[in-house]
Amino acid sequence: MNHTDKQTRILYGVAYYPEYMPVRRISTDMEMMKKAGINTIRIAESSWSSFEPEDGVFDFSIVKEILYYAGKYDLHVIIGTPTYAIPSWLVRKYPDILAVTHNGPSLYGHRQNMDITHPGYLFHAERIIRRLMEVCAGHPNVIGYQLDNETKSYDTAGERVQKMFVAYLKDKFKTTDALNTAFGLTYWSNRIASWEDFPDVRGTINASLGAEFKAFQRRLVTDFLSWQSGIVREYARDDQFLTQNFDFAWSDHSEGLQPEVDQRSVARALTIAGVDIYHPSAGDLTGAEIAMGGAIGRSIKKAPYLVLETQAQGNPGWLPYPGQLRLQAYSHLAGGAVSVMYWHWHSIHNSFETYWKGVLSHDLQENETYHEVCQIGQEFASHADLLSYRPVAECAILLGHRSLTGISYFPIGGLSYHQIMRWLFDALYRLNITCDMIYPEDVLSEDTGSLCQKYRIILTPALYSASDALIKKLKEYVFFGGHLISTFRSFFSDENLSVHPKVQPCDLTECFGIAYDQFTIPSGIVPLHFTEGILSGDAAASHSSVRAVSFMELLRPLSEETEVLASYDHSAYEKYAAITWHPFGKGSAAYLGCFFTDTLTLEELLRNLCTRMGILPPGPVFPVICKRSAKDDGSSLLYLFNYSGEEKTCFLPETGSVTLAPYDVQLFYNS
Amino acid sequence: MNHTDKQTRILYGVAYYPEYMPVRRISTDMEMMKKAGINTIRIAESSWSSFEPEDGVFDFSIVKEILYYAGKYDLHVIIGTPTYAIPSWLVRKYPDILAVTHNGPSLYGHRQNMDITHPGYLFHAERIIRRLMEVCAGHPNVIGYQLDNETKSYDTAGERVQKMFVAYLKDKFKTTDALNTAFGLTYWSNRIASWEDFPDVRGTINASLGAEFKAFQRRLVTDFLSWQSGIVREYARDDQFLTQNFDFAWSDHSEGLQPEVDQRSVARALTIAGVDIYHPSAGDLTGAEIAMGGAIGRSIKKAPYLVLETQAQGNPGWLPYPGQLRLQAYSHLAGGAVSVMYWHWHSIHNSFETYWKGVLSHDLQENETYHEVCQIGQEFASHADLLSYRPVAECAILLGHRSLTGISYFPIGGLSYHQIMRWLFDALYRLNITCDMIYPEDVLSEDTGSLCQKYRIILTPALYSASDALIKKLKEYVFFGGHLISTFRSFFSDENLSVHPKVQPCDLTECFGIAYDQFTIPSGIVPLHFTEGILSGDAAASHSSVRAVSFMELLRPLSEETEVLASYDHSAYEKYAAITWHPFGKGSAAYLGCFFTDTLTLEELLRNLCTRMGILPPGPVFPVICKRSAKDDGSSLLYLFNYSGEEKTCFLPETGSVTLAPYDVQLFYNS
Amino acid sequence: MNHTDKQTRILYGVAYYPEYMPVRRISTDMEMMKKAGINTIRIAESSWSSFEPEDGVFDFSIVKEILYYAGKYDLHVIIGTPTYAIPSWLVRKYPDILAVTHNGPSLYGHRQNMDITHPGYLFHAERIIRRLMEVCAGHPNVIGYQLDNETKSYDTAGERVQKMFVAYLKDKFKTTDALNTAFGLTYWSNRIASWEDFPDVRGTINASLGAEFKAFQRRLVTDFLSWQSGIVREYARDDQFLTQNFDFAWSDHSEGLQPEVDQRSVARALTIAGVDIYHPSAGDLTGAEIAMGGAIGRSIKKAPYLVLETQAQGNPGWLPYPGQLRLQAYSHLAGGAVSVMYWHWHSIHNSFETYWKGVLSHDLQENETYHEVCQIGQEFASHADLLSYRPVAECAILLGHRSLTGISYFPIGGLSYHQIMRWLFDALYRLNITCDMIYPEDVLSEDTGSLCQKYRIILTPALYSASDALIKKLKEYVFFGGHLISTFRSFFSDENLSVHPKVQPCDLTECFGIAYDQFTIPSGIVPLHFTEGILSGDAAASHSSVRAVSFMELLRPLSEETEVLASYDHSAYEKYAAITWHPFGKGSAAYLGCFFTDTLTLEELLRNLCTRMGILPPGPVFPVICKRSAKDDGSSLLYLFNYSGEEKTCFLPETGSVTLAPYDVQLFYNS
Repeated sequence: MNHTDKQTRILYGVAYYPEYMPVRRISTDMEMMKKAGINTIRIAESSWSSFEPEDGVFDFSIVKEILYYAGKYDLHVIIGTPTYAIPSWLVRKYPDILAVTHNGPSLYGHRQNMDITHPGYLFHAERIIRRLMEVCAGHPNVIGYQLDNETKSYDTAGERVQKMFVAYLKDKFKTTDALNTAFGLTYWSNRIASWEDFPDVRGTINASLGAEFKAFQRRLVTDFLSWQSGIVREYARDDQFLTQNFDFAWSDHSEGLQPEVDQRSVARALTIAGVDIYHPSAGDLTGAEIAMGGAIGRSIKKAPYLVLETQAQGNPGWLPYPGQLRLQAYSHLAGGAVSVMYWHWHSIHNSFETYWKGVLSHDLQENETYHEVCQIGQEFASHADLLSYRPVAECAILLGHRSLTGISYFPIGGLSYHQIMRWLFDALYRLNITCDMIYPEDVLSEDTGSLCQKYRIILTPALYSASDALIKKLKEYVFFGGHLISTFRSFFSDENLSVHPKVQPCDLTECFGIAYDQFTIPSGIVPLHFTEGILSGDAAASHSSVRAVSFMELLRPLSEETEVLASYDHSAYEKYAAITWHPFGKGSAAYLGCFFTDTLTLEELLRNLCTRMGILPPGPVFPVICKRSAKDDGSSLLYLFNYSGEEKTCFLPETGSVTLAPYDVQLFYNS
Repeated sequence: MNHTDKQTRILYGVAYYPEYMPVRRISTDMEMMKKAGINTIRIAESSWSSFEPEDGVFDFSIVKEILYYAGKYDLHVIIGTPTYAIPSWLVRKYPDILAVTHNGPSLYGHRQNMDITHPGYLFHAERIIRRLMEVCAGHPNVIGYQLDNETKSYDTAGERVQKMFVAYLKDKFKTTDALNTAFGLTYWSNRIASWEDFPDVRGTINASLGAEFKAFQRRLVTDFLSWQSGIVREYARDDQFLTQNFDFAWSDHSEGLQPEVDQRSVARALTIAGVDIYHPSAGDLTGAEIAMGGAIGRSIKKAPYLVLETQAQGNPGWLPYPGQLRLQAYSHLAGGAVSVMYWHWHSIHNSFETYWKGVLSHDLQENETYHEVCQIGQEFASHADLLSYRPVAECAILLGHRSLTGISYFPIGGLSYHQIMRWLFDALYRLNITCDMIYPEDVLSEDTGSLCQKYRIILTPALYSASDALIKKLKEYVFFGGHLISTFRSFFSDENLSVHPKVQPCDLTECFGIAYDQFTIPSGIVPLHFTEGILSGDAAASHSSVRAVSFMELLRPLSEETEVLASYDHSAYEKYAAITWHPFGKGSAAYLGCFFTDTLTLEELLRNLCTRMGILPPGPVFPVICKRSAKDDGSSLLYLFNYSGEEKTCFLPETGSVTLAPYDVQLFYNS
Repeated sequence: MNHTDKQTRILYGVAYYPEYMPVRRISTDMEMMKKAGINTIRIAESSWSSFEPEDGVFDFSIVKEILYYAGKYDLHVIIGTPTYAIPSWLVRKYPDILAVTHNGPSLYGHRQNMDITHPGYLFHAERIIRRLMEVCAGHPNVIGYQLDNETKSYDTAGERVQKMFVAYLKDKFKTTDALNTAFGLTYWSNRIASWEDFPDVRGTINASLGAEFKAFQRRLVTDFLSWQSGIVREYARDDQFLTQNFDFAWSDHSEGLQPEVDQRSVARALTIAGVDIYHPSAGDLTGAEIAMGGAIGRSIKKAPYLVLETQAQGNPGWLPYPGQLRLQAYSHLAGGAVSVMYWHWHSIHNSFETYWKGVLSHDLQENETYHEVCQIGQEFASHADLLSYRPVAECAILLGHRSLTGISYFPIGGLSYHQIMRWLFDALYRLNITCDMIYPEDVLSEDTGSLCQKYRIILTPALYSASDALIKKLKEYVFFGGHLISTFRSFFSDENLSVHPKVQPCDLTECFGIAYDQFTIPSGIVPLHFTEGILSGDAAASHSSVRAVSFMELLRPLSEETEVLASYDHSAYEKYAAITWHPFGKGSAAYLGCFFTDTLTLEELLRNLCTRMGILPPGPVFPVICKRSAKDDGSSLLYLFNYSGEEKTCFLPETGSVTLAPYDVQLFYNS
């Protein structure tokens, strides 16, 4: 069942919690929603204690009331299973239901604090899900289900969970010797001779073991949501979808790959992926997080995805300027989303997220944000055609959880995995080169020829953990015509974060035409010298001030064919290259051996590389953003966005000269 | 009994701990005190383990010795009950006597770490108090008692205390449903259906519940000190006072309203309030903390107060410049204090506060500070007349604990409650406009007419929590002739920190002539544009660089009469007002919708507002400080201070031209 | 037995962990070592769980294999007892073997987390040591033993350890009253009347008590290593040495006196001291840490020392520039080391120190670092003569653990003990004045005449804790011809951190010709005014911008003979001196009453002081470093180093004009 094929309108919606509100006004709310063109609400995922105030006592009256009015006002309803925030009576019943984590035991109060493997939790979660499904599944307005919400393992690491982990290790490694060897446990006397000696994993200083525990915790999430999926499927109609609300690594806003969930593995139990995307706004709005979140969103099931949550007024400081809400809404669609749903309808008057504001402020009246929602709703109502277009990408960024974990264990120079990924992604975004996100399994499972056809360029930002098989496949990819752009710290360790005992870049020296074994954090000033002609425009003029910072590898070119694009202008490093390009077989491979902060220089470098690799960036650059989508029949659609407060004029072959008002968006069809 | 009516001299004193000293020299010390004009010592509050070295074994020899010499040297003595620092044998006897807090169990060593509701603690505290009282109460030199010291709940939050809290909630809300509704517990599944399900409150993420627990902890302090008061009263003579040493919110020095104590509620059990005031000194001395502490001090019992502690040499970096100690001493008197007592006489040679230095350094010799004390003592001896004057204030700042808690739970833009309060208070201080401090109960209990008469202007800095009744009363106050100056974030939530589901400023839109429902943290630069004529002098010239920072509300003027004093000079906000003034009934109301850091601009804005509200600031401004006091007979007294290291000349109608030496103070009587 | 007398070659070596490596290649490694001139390896100290994989099951095959090949390749071997990192089975056997610290219980995983007083630990440690000794002791290539590694108490502070502490206190103080008095426990009711009342020391706020517990923990380290020494001595041959790998206070690199170990007390159980020295490199290399570490190293046994660990490639950011590794190696020798051993041979592929790189990178191939090692190895092979020279020092810096602890309890102005010590040490280093390190016991145990002869100048950076006896001895030292340079905060408290109740500098006012009792942290700008002629050159020209920061004492000159070298240029402090010099008896004493950051000014001040105290700094200053050594026969050796990336020319009487290439070192013999 592919839900989106059947979808006939853009889902424009809100999360809705009438049970939170100080006044009961469901029909008032829905009247306002209707007027605004809102056609979907998401309910129920946060309020277990309302539905089951006492153990075994159920009260779904509020759900029924919402469904009744949803029917009356013709709103789609997405039902969330209410299992991510447990009632206090459940904790009273099973005090050990609260997760024991690396920080010790948890206290009740917060959501997402329970041990998702606890039998008592699972028993009661199953019961509340079944009761809720009995109430909702048959209702004609219910279009789908969200399993739990932003599920993680919550770092559950108590004794029972650790026993499960040891069983998992036994299953994976069979012998303690195999484990000792794979993880290098000999170091600091950590090796074990019997499984019984396995210590509390929370104390480990072994990155390989720590990474394995994190992988195990991700598996717990997959297991838990797959189990929920099985229950919900017993009740769901064929026309109803199953989804999850996946979130991202977070750093005041959505930042990158979610470290705690293997979303693609979870998604096997879903019919459509859902994400929540939050981003800076007002003077800090760039759209990069929307594009990034979309690229990950459509990677989860290699298909369109739901935006189940995004900001309306949002956190303090996110209040959008006039026009930005509309710009954002279309940006989600351009990324491949088939819904735009706000978190949330009304603002909340108590507790914790009081200042994470919804469409309505606390006064529950029409306001500026609501008025812009009305405009969007009206436009979306006549734009169901947008659903049949898919974003077009010739590049892919190769992401990996183990690489992320590796960089977080060894954050040399203070650079995070997300930072390095976003360094590349954001520069390409500003150049208007669309990227997909792919994962090691995608590379390994695709035959090389079709991989070459699918993506002209694959980029590996800090792909720290790479198995021999993955390295071999990427080498083939280049040999047969693909192009590779890799940053420093790629290919350094294997899948267990064990450093490859080989010359770096491991088994790819022939492909990149370089080798290195030393690297450092620049002390003092290490200017980067770019070879004449690599940079153009302003970047060329100003590049003399660009410096290697945070991390630098000392690259030794190995062949005449290795083109040194940049080198270190420093007496101690003058014989080394900093950035290189090398033809290999039918393709080519570029290597960025150091970090630098000048974004214009990075953009120009990538423009140069993409061009020589066969992708010509369109003329306009950020703040003008162009996004191309295409239908199966070959017809295409161009979105033009102006991410600035000033009028912008740009020229594209298919549009001619276009003038965009501040924060404007325009659509151009080309059949 | 009003102690101060009978007071015939300014109490000039020191805290005195001969039991701490490496040498026994009580008569030497008192000789030196006497010579310096010191007439009062405070003793005994810190040394329970000296008085009761073993359970039930008492030794008050040191107290008796001090009293003997005090008699000999004619020193007043204030006796502190020694209950805020417990002996280790008491912990050995009752290991659970140490408070379990949000940070888990406490360890012995620090003072103020016990559970003040523990029956074992109360039993032993009562016994040591009674024994001490038996020794001291009859002594002629004992003029009063200090109950405990800087008492708090020390965040006691163990199981038994939490049971008391649930009983308190039951008593207050009767049903769990009422509790759920008042606090919005439905959110994140926190609602409870039976009192037995009430979870460990330490984990709560609900601001309303958290605030209630803080209020409950304040009540524990009131209960505890009232209980102590009852015991001490059994022994105290009629001519002896009962006080507490109240301290303030602390941020390297006294900062504002003490969040952990309801001082006015405690003070019902006292005969006079006492405070400790600490402040930056040397190049950072402004006197603002002395004025602020004094305003709170006299608000506690609406009467003169004791300064039980203030700095002599103080913390490192506080060593006063020559003349500052004298300046500070008179500043306390100008604020309404009837004592100035230093913490402490001698510096301490061991332990923890070794570098919080007293009048004497560790060498116990005469020094520069001692010499300035001598000068002050001599002057004070001939200034008993100052005791009969009371500070004159036409303005009042309205403070509230719930508002403080609300802002601390939701510190948008990083502004603390104290910061916003001090923003207003300090600007008025620099303008030489004296403020009282008042509280919601003061407003509610006073009839509107007399409130208007008492205070021409009431200011509400971030009065985040305001009940319907308080809002109604303030509206009446303005209607009948009062003037209101409110900042952003005032009136936003009710007494339970539940946001009012109404247009803001809640129920005061008619009064302020404005409405708003949106606000944000400025991103980028948001200049404030002040209407021509609002600012004068340097502020007018430089105001183009003043910017809204940290927080801004988007105010919509509602009436022609609403005067926009400042607006946002930014395309996204150009239709909104930033600062407004509006006549309402016989009074008027001004609203400051955003924060900015330029103090000169704030002073000029307040000068403008105060002037139109009928209070004309005197000519001089900081660093020249003028403080007016008055007697019941109408005669008045003007203090003139120079808070700078340079000579200052100023002009006032009643004094003519006056020249003040660096750090000088002069007094002008006007009968 | 003095090992070094018998040493016939410079030990040039590496730590070696073949058991960590992903491939077995001992003979390959040793072949490479041999080629490089490496003659020594240190093994075994980290791998208990490899040698005893199960309780009582032993496997020393890897040790035997290493020894076999060491024999074949003629490498010296140092055996480390493998007791600082325990196997997990030992924790399973004794769960309470993990230390309970101020932070609560420890988890397994990290090294150095056990309670070194735990009987179970001691039993098993003894057994593994004996078994290892049986395997190794007879092997001809084994030249010595390292007991444990970087041993500390790991803050063990559990119940049993605290009982030992109380017994220790009882033994030291006999009565609780003596304890109460010595530590000032009366304060905050901490005094105790019976030993049974002694509370959990982890909660104490009493600096004297806290310092005593730290001293007790240092004693545990001494006891533990002395006990290990006894065991190892049973097996060791006469030609084999016993050492420990002492490290330093750490702040990203070796910083100063190790606070947790009394190295000299431990060293009584050793035949030679060993240290590890790590330091900034590349653009941040100065050599100061090598000099400082060397000065402490040779102070431990007042004899040459082993450098058992120093960096090869080291931490990220430490990768040396070409030539620096060689410069560093000779710098160790110039400091008095008889070995230079790298940590470590190969880089580690897993776990925790993956990026603390050895001589070889992870690819285990020859590289730039290896090539420089080869050059050094070759040079060292022909330089055994260097072993017979000893560094010549006429100055000594007086260090003390209690002073360190005192400053860490009361870090006024944010200055750490190490910072103040390094302030003096580094300035002298840059002036090319070599310092020894001495300790209170050295001063007390030497008769005054010979102390005067040994050291022309003694410096006391922040000698916060000084007993009456020590003060008296220093006064005598000056009186009989020695010279003293003391900084602020010296002599302030006694050996228990109890502040001397006397005029400061305690009992030395006559010696320094000054007195003070007040001090402060400068607020605002407090310029230092240097008396004409004190500074010369650039320092004189720029000194008007030098300011007192962080801490300043208000010094009162007491005599006409007191020369004020600098005073405070500030109206509040104008009558005080900041820096003074005073002749006393046959010697003189200078006092630096405040801190300032301008290093050039400090150097010129010290140049002035040293000159008047009879030590003439040689001409060159940093980055040219000259180090003098001498043989017993009076012949001497001059090392000249260039610590910069530019060619330097300098002139010295014994060498004439010398030109040094970037990072060059040259040796000049003078017999």
